[in-house]
Amino acid sequence: MEPRYFDSGTVDVKFGAGVTVVRPANLYGCEIGEGCFVGPFVEIQKGVKVGARTRVQSHSFLCEGVTVGEDCFIGHGGMFVNDLFSGGGPSADPAEWRDTVIGNGVSIGSNVTLLPVAVCDGCVIGAGAVVTRDLTEKGVYAGNPARLVREL
Amino acid sequence: MEPRYFDSGTVDVKFGAGVTVVRPANLYGCEIGEGCFVGPFVEIQKGVKVGARTRVQSHSFLCEGVTVGEDCFIGHGGMFVNDLFSGGGPSADPAEWRDTVIGNGVSIGSNVTLLPVAVCDGCVIGAGAVVTRDLTEKGVYAGNPARLVREL
Amino acid sequence: MEPRYFDSGTVDVKFGAGVTVVRPANLYGCEIGEGCFVGPFVEIQKGVKVGARTRVQSHSFLCEGVTVGEDCFIGHGGMFVNDLFSGGGPSADPAEWRDTVIGNGVSIGSNVTLLPVAVCDGCVIGAGAVVTRDLTEKGVYAGNPARLVREL
Repeated sequence: MEPRYFDSGTVDVKFGAGVTVVRPANLYGCEIGEGCFVGPFVEIQKGVKVGARTRVQSHSFLCEGVTVGEDCFIGHGGMFVNDLFSGGGPSADPAEWRDTVIGNGVSIGSNVTLLPVAVCDGCVIGAGAVVTRDLTEKGVYAGNPARLVREL
Repeated sequence: MEPRYFDSGTVDVKFGAGVTVVRPANLYGCEIGEGCFVGPFVEIQKGVKVGARTRVQSHSFLCEGVTVGEDCFIGHGGMFVNDLFSGGGPSADPAEWRDTVIGNGVSIGSNVTLLPVAVCDGCVIGAGAVVTRDLTEKGVYAGNPARLVREL
Repeated sequence: MEPRYFDSGTVDVKFGAGVTVVRPANLYGCEIGEGCFVGPFVEIQKGVKVGARTRVQSHSFLCEGVTVGEDCFIGHGGMFVNDLFSGGGPSADPAEWRDTVIGNGVSIGSNVTLLPVAVCDGCVIGAGAVVTRDLTEKGVYAGNPARLVREL
């Protein structure tokens, strides 16, 4: 029996001026600010807003509920999360999903996982970190779970 | 000199009814149960069996030797492993690879790595975890290596 | 407003004999030695050199500044890093990026993150590890940060 196929692409995306996208990428229902770069093998879901001049590197996944500021760097393989499985598994009800807000000038290393959190302006998150709490102090964070390793 | 190119696609896959696949995806020699969803940038190798209504999210990799139950959720960037490099490197002999068996109703967060293990029904594995042992008790597991953080 | 699109592909790559590439893959300005395998959803940037018979598995990302030896295995989702954000964020100046050198016969598990390091011949890096320092002794390394777990 044949499955139903969809093809990755760009559907209902509001792009600012001067955006570059490397295909294949799967972007739908989101806003990508002026001067942004989106690398290959990226998925950005509906409702996501990415601020001007932010770079979303290859292999990243930005889920519904994510807002990223201006002049940020989302490293390769960055994975965002909106569902904490708090009922023991995924919820089909978006009202139970939680938002992530990334400030301006935030730099996220490669292969970072972010649970639904707020990250303040100017933070640096080291490669491979798992961010499980809000980062309210500007600094460098690393590890699983991510901890402050240096103030900035 | 030109390499030999293959294109990702669907080859020798047994699909149940009502499956959705977002391309590009590279599926071969596997069985995908009815009502499953397979996101973009996914690879599923030969011999893998995925149970009904399971969702395999974007950027996941399911290797030979993996069996996933029904009603599971494989988060974005989930990576399965079958070769423990026990001889000091990869083995070309599938007889040395080990199987992974995921029960029913298991929820695996984003960017989780699973060595060859058995995971019992209803387990929840937190985003970014590295699962190195069998999970025989229903609960929430997180960290590297993954540990029980809450019973269910 | 429409973005500028680029398509993943093979541009200015020097391939040895008998290389296999599974598309989509995004390779540019790099050298891939004879007998190598490159899986789907892989990006390899300019200046990278991959030695003969090395396997670069699906979902991997090899950045500028990376050299990989012969007979290596780069597991699925392997992510290399060249920019330490030492100025508090990404540097646009390649002179500030640092190199990674992987020896011969190195086996890197799935979902491993490597900061700019040197890894000696014959090392084994366990799945999910984050390598933050040079590995100068042949052995098995695992964890975040990666530590020696067994000599070889």
